[in-house]
Amino acid sequence: MFAGQGRQIHICEVTTRDGFQIEPTFVPTAAKVALIDELSRTGLPKIEVTSFASPKAIPSLRDAEEVFRGITRASGVIYSCLVPNQRGAERALAVKVDEINLVMSVSETHNLANLRMTREQSCAQLAETIRAVRHSGIVTNASLSACFGCPMEGLVAEADVWRFSERLLAAGAGGISLCDTTGMAHPAQVAGMVEEFRRRFPTAALALHLHNTRGMGLANTLAALQAGADRFDASLGGLGGCPYAPGATGNVCTEDLVHMLEVMGFTTGIDLGLLLECARHLPEIVGHDVPGQVAKAGRIRDLHPEPAWLAEVREKARERG
Amino acid sequence: MFAGQGRQIHICEVTTRDGFQIEPTFVPTAAKVALIDELSRTGLPKIEVTSFASPKAIPSLRDAEEVFRGITRASGVIYSCLVPNQRGAERALAVKVDEINLVMSVSETHNLANLRMTREQSCAQLAETIRAVRHSGIVTNASLSACFGCPMEGLVAEADVWRFSERLLAAGAGGISLCDTTGMAHPAQVAGMVEEFRRRFPTAALALHLHNTRGMGLANTLAALQAGADRFDASLGGLGGCPYAPGATGNVCTEDLVHMLEVMGFTTGIDLGLLLECARHLPEIVGHDVPGQVAKAGRIRDLHPEPAWLAEVREKARERG
Repeated sequence: MFAGQGRQIHICEVTTRDGFQIEPTFVPTAAKVALIDELSRTGLPKIEVTSFASPKAIPSLRDAEEVFRGITRASGVIYSCLVPNQRGAERALAVKVDEINLVMSVSETHNLANLRMTREQSCAQLAETIRAVRHSGIVTNASLSACFGCPMEGLVAEADVWRFSERLLAAGAGGISLCDTTGMAHPAQVAGMVEEFRRRFPTAALALHLHNTRGMGLANTLAALQAGADRFDASLGGLGGCPYAPGATGNVCTEDLVHMLEVMGFTTGIDLGLLLECARHLPEIVGHDVPGQVAKAGRIRDLHPEPAWLAEVREKARERG
Repeated sequence: MFAGQGRQIHICEVTTRDGFQIEPTFVPTAAKVALIDELSRTGLPKIEVTSFASPKAIPSLRDAEEVFRGITRASGVIYSCLVPNQRGAERALAVKVDEINLVMSVSETHNLANLRMTREQSCAQLAETIRAVRHSGIVTNASLSACFGCPMEGLVAEADVWRFSERLLAAGAGGISLCDTTGMAHPAQVAGMVEEFRRRFPTAALALHLHNTRGMGLANTLAALQAGADRFDASLGGLGGCPYAPGATGNVCTEDLVHMLEVMGFTTGIDLGLLLECARHLPEIVGHDVPGQVAKAGRIRDLHPEPAWLAEVREKARERG
């Protein structure tokens, strides 16, 4: 039930999008490009590079095109991007992204606040975009925000999650991501929703986008794994966050997640050593400490030498006993 | 499998012992007493007040007797203390503690480094202490450090965990705590060890003492819950830590744990609101930020008002469509 037994888990790294998006200081384009190129060498199967949102709405990602043109694309890595509307999709297609991750919220209030459209308007736009690019070879994914709760509305009706999933899959979305945008999910809820999604849409690719806002990020991941999920978003260093929870941590941390998966016997294809090197550069790039733990504590199997004075203690103890 | 369905979970709060123990600045006795008195009003069933270790070894807890004499004992709360040796047990008995939590490590190297005795010497002393106090009405518990790994030796033989558990239970220990002293456990391992403990010692009280050093604290808790564990140590604010992992977080955070348990439908008997008030005083007491998340982010069900500008956005969106 718990051991990974080699099961393959697919990680999508989102720190340069979901993490940098809320950084108060603009991360220079060259630093973004350098980090993505470094991440490309770790074995990560997918990187969500940036967001093609309005530069006015998200000025920290106003260099989306430059970043996409600046990176060196490694074979085997899918370079994805977030797209909140039709204009964003056009911009993404112009720089030949590999995958478009469309986003809307299943909470009406959250969708209005973030995208300034009703859910119906967003869903119609996204479905149209999916249909428009379906034959271009570019994959689309649909991320549904606030699936596990909205910070303004509270619990969201599960029926709405299934309704929008169904419409976007019917339009041709390659997969659905259930997003815990502000870290409101708990393990019992995550397990139940993953099971229900898989029952309703048995052939659709399902990803979980979980945050650690209330400390439950990896517990929710564990519940999702047990319910059969095998695709997860995560951010290097656990960057990201939620404007409603200042001081709280952000996304599930990629290196902490990969570490847990590897020690449990899952397969990620990622070189954790290289990933930890990336993570250890991150505080310098963003100018502050980051929430990730394994980069500070080391891996479980990184052992420490005995202190020099222990030999004498051991000798004395043996003499006594 | 996941939902709590009202199952009672017993929390032992350890921040004034495991947390304050490694604080670089001495927490004044009056502040310790005030915090314990505040914690006593939250519904916590057990508080590990302090450690009767050598004041030279742990100067931050050199006021163990004063703290015990200073607190106001609430009915229904068990006031426990850590005891590493016979001398400590005598001191604890002198101030009439309710419970003695004896400690040794299942790793020979770790036991020598922490207690300056071999495991055999420690186990013999602890067994003797258990037998000595058995008829006094004072409960004993035995905490086994490094059950899930030793930072110097690596994995510890499970057979040693069962051997020392068996000897201490046979001597009359009221329960065993399996301790992940330096945060090396992972969920598959925790589930396996909880199941094996319950198979071998079906009538013994089992507690888990988990740390969040590598971010897996609540994931390990979830695994333990699913394997049938119902007693957990935790520290307010997630204080505590491990000298081998500077910068990493400490014990599983009490308020984050209680929050997860409550939203999943378990029963703790603890008033989370009062507990969060305690947690919000903690940074002032210790003079620095603490790792706990829920005290910063609020509970899942603490909703936020809509921004004032949303009414206009909603109106405009509706006009469009």
